[in-house]
Amino acid sequence: MDLSPIGGSFTCCGVPANQRGVVVGHMRGVRGGRRRRWRQRQVNGCCCSWAMDEGSRMWMVTCTAPVNIAVIKYWGKRDEELILPINSSLSVTLHQDQLKSTTTVAASRDFKEDRIWLNGKEENINHPRLQTCLREIRRLARKRRTSGDGNSNTLSLHHKVHICSVNNFPTAAGLASSAAGYACLVYALAKLHGLEGELSEIARQGSGSACRSMYGGFVQWMMGVKEDGSDSIAQQIEPETHWSELRVLILVVSAEQKPIGSTAGMQTSVKTSPLLKYRTEIVPERMKEMIDAIKRQDFETFGQLTMKDSNQFHATCLDTFPPIIYLNDISKRIINLVHRYNSHFGETRVAYTFDAGPNAVIYIREQHVDEFVEVVKHYFPPEENGEQFLKGLPVNSVSVSEHLKSSIQMDSIKSGIQYIINTQVGPGPQLIQDANLHLLGENGFPKQ
Amino acid sequence: MDLSPIGGSFTCCGVPANQRGVVVGHMRGVRGGRRRRWRQRQVNGCCCSWAMDEGSRMWMVTCTAPVNIAVIKYWGKRDEELILPINSSLSVTLHQDQLKSTTTVAASRDFKEDRIWLNGKEENINHPRLQTCLREIRRLARKRRTSGDGNSNTLSLHHKVHICSVNNFPTAAGLASSAAGYACLVYALAKLHGLEGELSEIARQGSGSACRSMYGGFVQWMMGVKEDGSDSIAQQIEPETHWSELRVLILVVSAEQKPIGSTAGMQTSVKTSPLLKYRTEIVPERMKEMIDAIKRQDFETFGQLTMKDSNQFHATCLDTFPPIIYLNDISKRIINLVHRYNSHFGETRVAYTFDAGPNAVIYIREQHVDEFVEVVKHYFPPEENGEQFLKGLPVNSVSVSEHLKSSIQMDSIKSGIQYIINTQVGPGPQLIQDANLHLLGENGFPKQ
Repeated sequence: MDLSPIGGSFTCCGVPANQRGVVVGHMRGVRGGRRRRWRQRQVNGCCCSWAMDEGSRMWMVTCTAPVNIAVIKYWGKRDEELILPINSSLSVTLHQDQLKSTTTVAASRDFKEDRIWLNGKEENINHPRLQTCLREIRRLARKRRTSGDGNSNTLSLHHKVHICSVNNFPTAAGLASSAAGYACLVYALAKLHGLEGELSEIARQGSGSACRSMYGGFVQWMMGVKEDGSDSIAQQIEPETHWSELRVLILVVSAEQKPIGSTAGMQTSVKTSPLLKYRTEIVPERMKEMIDAIKRQDFETFGQLTMKDSNQFHATCLDTFPPIIYLNDISKRIINLVHRYNSHFGETRVAYTFDAGPNAVIYIREQHVDEFVEVVKHYFPPEENGEQFLKGLPVNSVSVSEHLKSSIQMDSIKSGIQYIINTQVGPGPQLIQDANLHLLGENGFPKQ
Repeated sequence: MDLSPIGGSFTCCGVPANQRGVVVGHMRGVRGGRRRRWRQRQVNGCCCSWAMDEGSRMWMVTCTAPVNIAVIKYWGKRDEELILPINSSLSVTLHQDQLKSTTTVAASRDFKEDRIWLNGKEENINHPRLQTCLREIRRLARKRRTSGDGNSNTLSLHHKVHICSVNNFPTAAGLASSAAGYACLVYALAKLHGLEGELSEIARQGSGSACRSMYGGFVQWMMGVKEDGSDSIAQQIEPETHWSELRVLILVVSAEQKPIGSTAGMQTSVKTSPLLKYRTEIVPERMKEMIDAIKRQDFETFGQLTMKDSNQFHATCLDTFPPIIYLNDISKRIINLVHRYNSHFGETRVAYTFDAGPNAVIYIREQHVDEFVEVVKHYFPPEENGEQFLKGLPVNSVSVSEHLKSSIQMDSIKSGIQYIINTQVGPGPQLIQDANLHLLGENGFPKQ
C-alpha cells in the first residue's frame, strides 16, 4: 500500500498546495463494488483532495451556513425565475452553534453525474433551482479562469459533483431550512472552485432568503431595480459582534397542520392580495427605520417594527385568496403573552416574529432571557415526558413575580410549545477545517 | 272598577284613535307600592296607550329588528362621535324568525327619568350613544311638530321613556347584537313618536352597522362625504324577496377567549394599521361589483367577494398594533373546509364571512344546504350530550359521498362547533301588533 503523499503541485481554491499545510492519510473508496486506494491531501483552511491509484483526483470541501430570521419580511417575487423580490428585506443571522446547515461537495473526473443527498436521502439533482446554482457557480468559475486569474491545475469545470447536505435541526421546526441549505451549497461550491467575493446573487437564485444567509450579523437584501437581478443582493448592515446582548429564542410550536410552502404561498399572494401591492409602498420607510434602530441598538424601535412587520406579512397572507393562515391558536397566545409582558413593564422587552409557520422567534436582550423563558414555561408548561424543553445557550431558573402573573392574566396551556432554542446572532458561512467532518467519504458517497 | 275605554280622542303615531281599532283591557300597575287601575287602548298596527285613574296617560310600542351580516365589511370610523365610516359597506339582513332584537318603549308623564333594561338587567341610560339616539329622535319629533305636521294631542316630548330590550340569541354568539339592538330602539322610539321616513342616520349614531338593520334584504351603508353625516345612510339594494334561494348558516364556534370589542378594535386599527388606509381605495370597486352580483343573483361573484372581503377585514385587524386576531383554529378549519368543498365542485357553492369573533356565517343556496350541513357535521361532529345542533329552518339528513370526503381530506374535530342556525334573508324592523308581547307591563316596568 502506498501511503506517500501525492507528488507534484496542484492548486486548490486558487492557492498552490505547496503554500499550505498538507495532511496525509490512507483512505478507502468503494464504488461499483471495487476497492480503491486513495491518497489524501488536506489543505488547511480549504478543501481536501485525494488522488486515486489510477491517477484520478477528487476535490472535497465542507462548509456550514446559518439560518436567518427576517425582521422585515420578504413575501412575493417580481421575477419567479431570477427570484427578484417585490420589496427589500432585513434579517438577523442566527448562530451556527445552535442551527446550521452543513454541506460537503466533492468533484471528480470519476463521477458520472451530479448527485445530491439531503438529510440522508438522495434527491433529484435536476431541481431547477439546484441546477441554477450549479450553472451559475460554474459560469463564475469559468469567467474567473478565462479572465486569467485562474490556474490550469484547478479542478476541471467538466467534473461532476457529489453534494451531501444535512441540517442540525428538524425540518419540521419550519426554520427556513432552504435558506441555510442553499447558502451552504453556494458557499461550498464557491470554495471548491476557489471563488471569493459576492455570492449572494447566486444563493438568491437557489432560495430568495438564502442570499441573506451569506453574511453574519444584520443583513439586508436590497430588492434591486435591474432586470437581470445583478443588484438584488445581500449586504451586511452590522456584523454579529455589533449588538452582543441580543438573544433569539425559538419557540417551536406543536403544529398539527402542514403549512403551505412559501414558494407557492407567495405566488398566490402576488396574484391575489390587493393589500400586498400596497405593502411595497410601506416597506422602504420600514427598512430605513430598522437599519437605523439596529445601528443605534434601539431595542424599542427594533422590537416594535419587528412585530409590526411580522403581523403585516401575515395580514397579506390572510388577504391572499384562498387565504394562507400560518399562525395558529398557540401563535396567537404567544403574541398575546408578549404584548402583555411588554405592557407590564411599559417597554418593549421582547418581540415576536413568525415566518411561514406557527413557530415564534423571539428577539430579546440577554438580561431578560431568564425571566421571559420562565414566563413562557409558566403559561406553556412542557409535557412531563416530553423531550428536553430548553436547548441551546444556558438559561437560569428564576421565579416569576405574582405581580407580573396578575398583569398577564392568561390561562396556562399544556404542551403548546414543544421546546425552546436559545441562541444569538452569529457569523456567516464557515469553511470546516476538520476533514473528519466531511459528509462524503473518500469514495465520494455519503458516509452514513 | 272602570273598564270602559278612555273617552275623547287622542292621537298615537299621528293617526287619530277613532280611525283605528280599539281593544280594551284591565291592567294593574304597581309602582311605589301603590295599586292603580288602568284603562287600555290598543291601536292596531301601532302603539298602545293607557290612561290611569288619575288621568295620566302612558304610550307604549314594541318592535323587532333584525341582525345583519356584512359581505363588504365596515371597519374604522372617520368620525368617532357621528360614527362616520372610512368606507361604504354592504350587508344581508337576516330573518327575524331566527334572530331578532325586541324592544318595548313606553312614555309617560309619571316616569321620573329615562331608564333602560337590556336582557333583563337595568343598564346605564347615560351611555353616550343611547343618549344620542334619544336626543336625535326627540329632535326629529320636535321638528315634525313645529313644522306643523304634528298634532298637539301626541305624547309630550318632555315625557320620560322606559326602554326594555331583549335578544332571542345569546350575546355570546357574537352576532352583532348592538346593530339589531340600536336599530330596534330607534325604530321603536320613532313609532312611539309617529315618525316615518329615513331613520338610518339616527340608528348609525347608536351603532354604525345598526343603520343597515333598518332595512330588509340587501342593504348598503353609503359612507357619505358630508361632515355632518347626513349623507352617511343606509339604502336598500334589493328587498328580501329578491333572491329567495339564498340561505344563511351561522356556525357558532366554541370560543375560549373573549374577543376585543369592535369599537375599541377599529379605533386601534385606524390609528395603527397602514394597510387599512389602503383598503379605502379597494372598497369602492368591491361595492360596485357586489351590488351588481346581488342584482344578477350571481352567487359565484357574490361568494368569492364575500370571502375576500372577510379575509381583508381580518387582515387589517392583524395589521393593527397590537394585532387583533378574531379567527381561531376552528375558524381556520371552516375556511379550509369551504375552500375544499368548493374546489371539489369547481364552483363557489358556499361562502364564509367572519365578524369580530370566531363564528362563521355561511352564505349558500337552498339546494346545497342539506349536503353542506352534513359535511359540517362530519368534520365537526357535535358533542353527544350537547345542545340541539341544528336550529332554525329545517335541514334534511343526507349522506356525503366518499368521493367528496376524499377531496376534502380533513380530520374530524369533536365539538368545535356548538350549533348551527339555518336562516334566510329577511325584512327590516317590524311593529308588533300583539299587546301581550310588550316587554314592559302596564306599570311601565319590565314584566319579568
